[in-house]
Amino acid sequence: MWGGRFSGGPAELMRAINSSIATDKRLWREDVLGSRAHAAMLGRQGIISAEDAEAIDRGLQHIADEYARDGVSEDPALEDIHMHVEARLGELIGEPAGRLHTARSRNDQVATDLRLWVRGATDQTLGLIDHFEQVLLDRADEHAATIMPGFTHLQSGQPVTLGHHLLAYQQMASRDRSRFEDSRRRLNQCPLGSAALAGTGYSIDRDFTARALGFDRPAANSIDAVSDRDFILDYLSSAAICALHLSRLAEEIILWASQPFGFVRLPDSWSTGSSIMPNKRNPDAAELVRSHAARIVGGLVGVMTLIKGLPLAYAKDMQDATPQLFEAHDRLTVALQASTGMMAQLEFVPERMRAAAAAGHATATDLADWLVTKANVPFREAHHIAGSAVAAAESKGVSLDALTIDELRQIDDRITAEALSVLTVEASVAARRSAGGTAPERVAEAVAAARAARKSES
Amino acid sequence: MWGGRFSGGPAELMRAINSSIATDKRLWREDVLGSRAHAAMLGRQGIISAEDAEAIDRGLQHIADEYARDGVSEDPALEDIHMHVEARLGELIGEPAGRLHTARSRNDQVATDLRLWVRGATDQTLGLIDHFEQVLLDRADEHAATIMPGFTHLQSGQPVTLGHHLLAYQQMASRDRSRFEDSRRRLNQCPLGSAALAGTGYSIDRDFTARALGFDRPAANSIDAVSDRDFILDYLSSAAICALHLSRLAEEIILWASQPFGFVRLPDSWSTGSSIMPNKRNPDAAELVRSHAARIVGGLVGVMTLIKGLPLAYAKDMQDATPQLFEAHDRLTVALQASTGMMAQLEFVPERMRAAAAAGHATATDLADWLVTKANVPFREAHHIAGSAVAAAESKGVSLDALTIDELRQIDDRITAEALSVLTVEASVAARRSAGGTAPERVAEAVAAARAARKSES
Amino acid sequence: MWGGRFSGGPAELMRAINSSIATDKRLWREDVLGSRAHAAMLGRQGIISAEDAEAIDRGLQHIADEYARDGVSEDPALEDIHMHVEARLGELIGEPAGRLHTARSRNDQVATDLRLWVRGATDQTLGLIDHFEQVLLDRADEHAATIMPGFTHLQSGQPVTLGHHLLAYQQMASRDRSRFEDSRRRLNQCPLGSAALAGTGYSIDRDFTARALGFDRPAANSIDAVSDRDFILDYLSSAAICALHLSRLAEEIILWASQPFGFVRLPDSWSTGSSIMPNKRNPDAAELVRSHAARIVGGLVGVMTLIKGLPLAYAKDMQDATPQLFEAHDRLTVALQASTGMMAQLEFVPERMRAAAAAGHATATDLADWLVTKANVPFREAHHIAGSAVAAAESKGVSLDALTIDELRQIDDRITAEALSVLTVEASVAARRSAGGTAPERVAEAVAAARAARKSES
Amino acid sequence: MWGGRFSGGPAELMRAINSSIATDKRLWREDVLGSRAHAAMLGRQGIISAEDAEAIDRGLQHIADEYARDGVSEDPALEDIHMHVEARLGELIGEPAGRLHTARSRNDQVATDLRLWVRGATDQTLGLIDHFEQVLLDRADEHAATIMPGFTHLQSGQPVTLGHHLLAYQQMASRDRSRFEDSRRRLNQCPLGSAALAGTGYSIDRDFTARALGFDRPAANSIDAVSDRDFILDYLSSAAICALHLSRLAEEIILWASQPFGFVRLPDSWSTGSSIMPNKRNPDAAELVRSHAARIVGGLVGVMTLIKGLPLAYAKDMQDATPQLFEAHDRLTVALQASTGMMAQLEFVPERMRAAAAAGHATATDLADWLVTKANVPFREAHHIAGSAVAAAESKGVSLDALTIDELRQIDDRITAEALSVLTVEASVAARRSAGGTAPERVAEAVAAARAARKSES
Repeated sequence: MWGGRFSGGPAELMRAINSSIATDKRLWREDVLGSRAHAAMLGRQGIISAEDAEAIDRGLQHIADEYARDGVSEDPALEDIHMHVEARLGELIGEPAGRLHTARSRNDQVATDLRLWVRGATDQTLGLIDHFEQVLLDRADEHAATIMPGFTHLQSGQPVTLGHHLLAYQQMASRDRSRFEDSRRRLNQCPLGSAALAGTGYSIDRDFTARALGFDRPAANSIDAVSDRDFILDYLSSAAICALHLSRLAEEIILWASQPFGFVRLPDSWSTGSSIMPNKRNPDAAELVRSHAARIVGGLVGVMTLIKGLPLAYAKDMQDATPQLFEAHDRLTVALQASTGMMAQLEFVPERMRAAAAAGHATATDLADWLVTKANVPFREAHHIAGSAVAAAESKGVSLDALTIDELRQIDDRITAEALSVLTVEASVAARRSAGGTAPERVAEAVAAARAARKSES
Repeated sequence: MWGGRFSGGPAELMRAINSSIATDKRLWREDVLGSRAHAAMLGRQGIISAEDAEAIDRGLQHIADEYARDGVSEDPALEDIHMHVEARLGELIGEPAGRLHTARSRNDQVATDLRLWVRGATDQTLGLIDHFEQVLLDRADEHAATIMPGFTHLQSGQPVTLGHHLLAYQQMASRDRSRFEDSRRRLNQCPLGSAALAGTGYSIDRDFTARALGFDRPAANSIDAVSDRDFILDYLSSAAICALHLSRLAEEIILWASQPFGFVRLPDSWSTGSSIMPNKRNPDAAELVRSHAARIVGGLVGVMTLIKGLPLAYAKDMQDATPQLFEAHDRLTVALQASTGMMAQLEFVPERMRAAAAAGHATATDLADWLVTKANVPFREAHHIAGSAVAAAESKGVSLDALTIDELRQIDDRITAEALSVLTVEASVAARRSAGGTAPERVAEAVAAARAARKSES
Repeated sequence: MWGGRFSGGPAELMRAINSSIATDKRLWREDVLGSRAHAAMLGRQGIISAEDAEAIDRGLQHIADEYARDGVSEDPALEDIHMHVEARLGELIGEPAGRLHTARSRNDQVATDLRLWVRGATDQTLGLIDHFEQVLLDRADEHAATIMPGFTHLQSGQPVTLGHHLLAYQQMASRDRSRFEDSRRRLNQCPLGSAALAGTGYSIDRDFTARALGFDRPAANSIDAVSDRDFILDYLSSAAICALHLSRLAEEIILWASQPFGFVRLPDSWSTGSSIMPNKRNPDAAELVRSHAARIVGGLVGVMTLIKGLPLAYAKDMQDATPQLFEAHDRLTVALQASTGMMAQLEFVPERMRAAAAAGHATATDLADWLVTKANVPFREAHHIAGSAVAAAESKGVSLDALTIDELRQIDDRITAEALSVLTVEASVAARRSAGGTAPERVAEAVAAARAARKSES
Repeated sequence: MWGGRFSGGPAELMRAINSSIATDKRLWREDVLGSRAHAAMLGRQGIISAEDAEAIDRGLQHIADEYARDGVSEDPALEDIHMHVEARLGELIGEPAGRLHTARSRNDQVATDLRLWVRGATDQTLGLIDHFEQVLLDRADEHAATIMPGFTHLQSGQPVTLGHHLLAYQQMASRDRSRFEDSRRRLNQCPLGSAALAGTGYSIDRDFTARALGFDRPAANSIDAVSDRDFILDYLSSAAICALHLSRLAEEIILWASQPFGFVRLPDSWSTGSSIMPNKRNPDAAELVRSHAARIVGGLVGVMTLIKGLPLAYAKDMQDATPQLFEAHDRLTVALQASTGMMAQLEFVPERMRAAAAAGHATATDLADWLVTKANVPFREAHHIAGSAVAAAESKGVSLDALTIDELRQIDDRITAEALSVLTVEASVAARRSAGGTAPERVAEAVAAARAARKSES
């Protein structure tokens, strides 16, 4: 393709490492679409003849049909998807194929293909997040009043409702959605027409190609357009943050499924066994969600490190961003699907959760709050009194709510029998009715509000 | 502060590693603001008396004055900024100080402080980016017609204008702005009132505190609100991408200042010398901009790795995100200021740039385009012919535009004398008038458009 | 210092960002040592007079005393520790101070200082790892026969002994030691005498300075010597891997201390409480060990990203490696000390561990092994039979060892009453006597062997 | 394989994400080797019959032949390479195949396979590094006296010899070799016999299998042996550091090939062209070496992040380390081969290098050194005088060595005509005869010494 100046051919290794077809053949749909828009524009502007434009378009459609049917065959002599398409076009339509590359370069071509691909990947990811949120809302609704321990530092802190806990993940998911929407908006500008880096002298119509490919507008600066990979970094950082959220849920599923917790039972469909231990039922899917987050973080680092310090405009280094993008997208897709599937089918064990919620003297805060509210004790002092009650319960080897009123009054005589009523986990969660709090009624409201918001958006 | 239950004190090392005051004292303004809003709300809602609320507010203002004047003294026995403020308040106003922590926890308190801080840091960063863009526009305007080599793969590709090249960085900066604006919008929700993780039983008014602190609304879920650090990840990933842009410019400044390029002269104010080599004038500022990008990427990785797999809700690990956030913000601030300062004072050497632009047969594309336009040669064939012309020039040891018309016609006889006129770098840049292209008139228009857009935004 | 060529001074920001004194003052001991060795060599070789050499040495000793006593005062006009020392030397001894920098550059000087510092930090780290191993061996010895669940996928798999589990960490620690020893050996070459990058024309004696500073030999190539920071990367990657090991232990301590596990009780000295929940006893130290691992990984990434693509020789970017090195060393030191402290004082709760070990049908493998050994059943088939027994126990709602012999024989009639004896956790661990296995006798042997190996090394 | 307990099958997605065969089939040679050693041991120890052991061995050899000939066919129902081999063995030899998995688990099996693979990959990498060093030595020998500019901060500092510059890379390569050798030694312990995590009750002989597989000894602790992936982290960090070295050389090749430098000419075999610009000859191979370093850093981060905080023993997350290991090894292999190929065939342009070496007043240090040596001026003062001479040359618009003796004496009258002789680049490099310095004779000696050391090692 670039033979005029060259006398010797590439070294064998050079050919091998320079070839990206094994990776970028995944861009064939975008490449064909971009070429069709470009050819149509060249024809409209009279840069090529109407007949040539039409021949090219028919040829490209033919290629798209072939690829959809048979896949892209990889020819090592044709280094990338752009050359594969162009070479096949030449076989199909002859001389006019040589006119398709007028007024463009692979630099603006690949930038356009990649933006189209990331836009599609973003839309697909948004759909998966949406489905995940829906399942979270359903399970939260179902468990609006199911009591579980609320941990901080993985120590039993205060009882919460399972529905409320699940809604925390729905909040993360809704931020993930917002992040992908932002980056989708930011990327939706068309590089085509930037040519190698300087623009072109042909009388092209960049608004036409931008519109034809669903972009909001042409990219404003041709040097930036061919050297910018922000849209990959945006996708990767949004993917990494989303995957980190999923990794937190996966960690919890793994904990909950562990025998000492026993909060959930993983269905067979999401478990695996052991080659040696017949008793095992392993949460492999959750573990892979967790490790996929790590791989996506690695991919983000790979691309950031790659970009750092690259002078303008295009450099070949940027080609190495593509496989890391694909890998991250595939990992995120699996992580979202697996998280959704597990969440939909997880069998919660409310009695284990309820029992654990009562452990660790988890209603000590309620005692302190009672002292503040009913006995006008400053919170700092009330906190200290409740701490002493916990210490007393511990030394007696019982849980806080098993102390008698006499024992409590020995600690502080402002405590009355009424106080005992706040020490149950049910009373504790019911009390937390502040906005965004864990009380069952708040959870039900939150589910309803989220569903209403989703309905109004769509 | 959490003494009731504890009998033994912490190990010395434990006290040391648990203490975060050396880092989080930087949050004092936000901590005082948050506490004032909280106390006002407690008073309004009758959770504490109006007198107590007023005493607390006066005390907090007093503390703010002290800190502004004298800095925050670090007491190792008080582990963080929250305890420093509360302890000092106790010294100043006595018993009512013990009522301030009613209906809140350090978990929602620190989440609120951090969001306020990141919001402020974001606004400051947006201001720096804005100033940087302004300087880029000024220099681009000045050099709209200055010719330099346009590189791809750091090989001379086609001539471009320096103004056009600088506008590529202005495009990056405008995306950086958009990214920080997006994350600012996403973070602007108030965690206060989420308490430890479950919300609270006191009749608090979260809308009031949210409004008082300039937030758009209360955070929707109390468990999420105390365990979420997305706003730090958002800041860090935006900072990393912005710093990567600056690192590309820094790389170019370093290249341009190197003797073989000689495209710029760094003023003494942005250079340093050598302890041994009297001849040196080193671009240290640019090198540090480049390395700061690496450190910010490292910080992003540090926080992502930290968050991965953390179960809900708050975990102490999250405390380690704060110093990495501060460090990244400081590095980005320096990088933006130094980039702006260098860009404002860089002395370009147009004659070196012009000479380099002509090297490497940089107008070979123009010859190919001429063949397409004037002789109806398919681009692929024209490309091959121009490549042969380059090979001929190389073997003769001259540059492409030094070939005679006879020599060119020996390669392809469709070339006429008219073709010679397109082989100058001036003709080449003038021709590239496509939208977003490098022609001087396009650059001038782009500067004007960017200035108009900025005016209409502000 | 580099004034001859410069007319203007640096911009204020330039001065600020160029100054590294706040960070590199930590190198003062190494800087003084290096200068003393250099001056002694210059005197021996007659490059400076014996009197000057002596005056310099006395001055440098004086400075060392001052710094040890008062710390290093930071003068913003003197950018780094090298200039601080040299300037102070000038104040103390006048003109001969100007001769100290003969035949060297800050490039070889800082490379020497840093290697000396990393060597010292490595020795300190080795000492901490050694202490950690010793504590692990002591606790393993104490708990050679304490039974706990052995988890894979955090699912109860087979019973193991706590001593055996702790020895896994001792193995990791011994690899950490080996890694630091390797990198210490690799770094122990002296850059001094490489000057700016090219070596020098003075008749210096590099063997003398290398020996004087405890190096094995002079670095072989002057360009490499000033541009190499491998020893920092080696330290950081060893530190990261070591910290990852500690993070795994920290994760386990956090799990074990969580109420549903209850395997350990953290002493007050390694716990903290909550500002709101009087019942909390949080494993903050373990959480910080975990998060410090993340920060060290971030630091490694920061320095790797910084080095990537730097042309030879010295570049200012490399200065940014130093604070990340210091930070990583400090985090690792804390993580090792805290891990050692926690491990020494952790109160294990054997009855909770024993109870958990029996959960999850953890001796199912023993049943399968019995079938293989006593009934000549192929393992694959035996595994399937034992799996069916687990299913039967589950559907009956009991644990595997509570099945009757009749129930077992209904599953496979080759099972005899003898098989019941292998289903206890005690029998299970006692049986695993293979080399490196979990049987108490193997653990005791392993402790003894490790102690003997350590004794013979020291 | 783990069916006894399970009633439902896996979800389709679960099957897909759980399957690792597409990746780990690359371990087939190691898996077969490990199984053969294991079966031989089982036979020797009488755990299985001699006939069964022999049947298994024949079957495994048959499978190895099949795989070597036809590749590994992927059956989605068999999740990994271990199950593929075992299932195929069952087809070939029937019932005895079910006895192969006696006294082992996939946990120790995969740990063994991976160590064998990494050991092989390390040996292969060591071979590539060795070849690279050899080429560097050859080119350094050839260019021991070729003069080029020595840059610091990418500013012309002092002249150096190209041979000396290339030897800096040979030093890096020799450290890389040492690093891989260290980690090879550290990994060479055999996990086989650790079973699931606890060891086994069968009377196995771990010394036998360790020896049979070329390991130095059995791994000491069975829990560690199945949960340790340090050998992957060691490989990845060594690979990352090696790749960073190559990235620095790649950066230099890219710079040197850029028109303003023109220090090298890339042969056609290591260059590519442009689809639009007929004049381009791009250093794609060097750019990919640079970007591969970034990907390897990303892989290291991915695995470190994955390991962080994993409780013992095996977790499925660890499976995700394998593809990142393979990817890193492949990238490093390509980077080493391409660096070696380019270095062997790079055409240096000594006249461009010589001309550039004289730019930037690169012999100013020589003037300062002359003043110290011949006129007994303290270096600090001499540095200042030489700096003034540079300033004078600059203001006159000439290079330092073009100043007349009168002009120099106006700056400082201690300068005599003799001083002019040190201002040539030839004199400058010839003077730098200190150990490890750039003088041609030192370079020749260094090449000879390195060759001798290599000969004595092999």
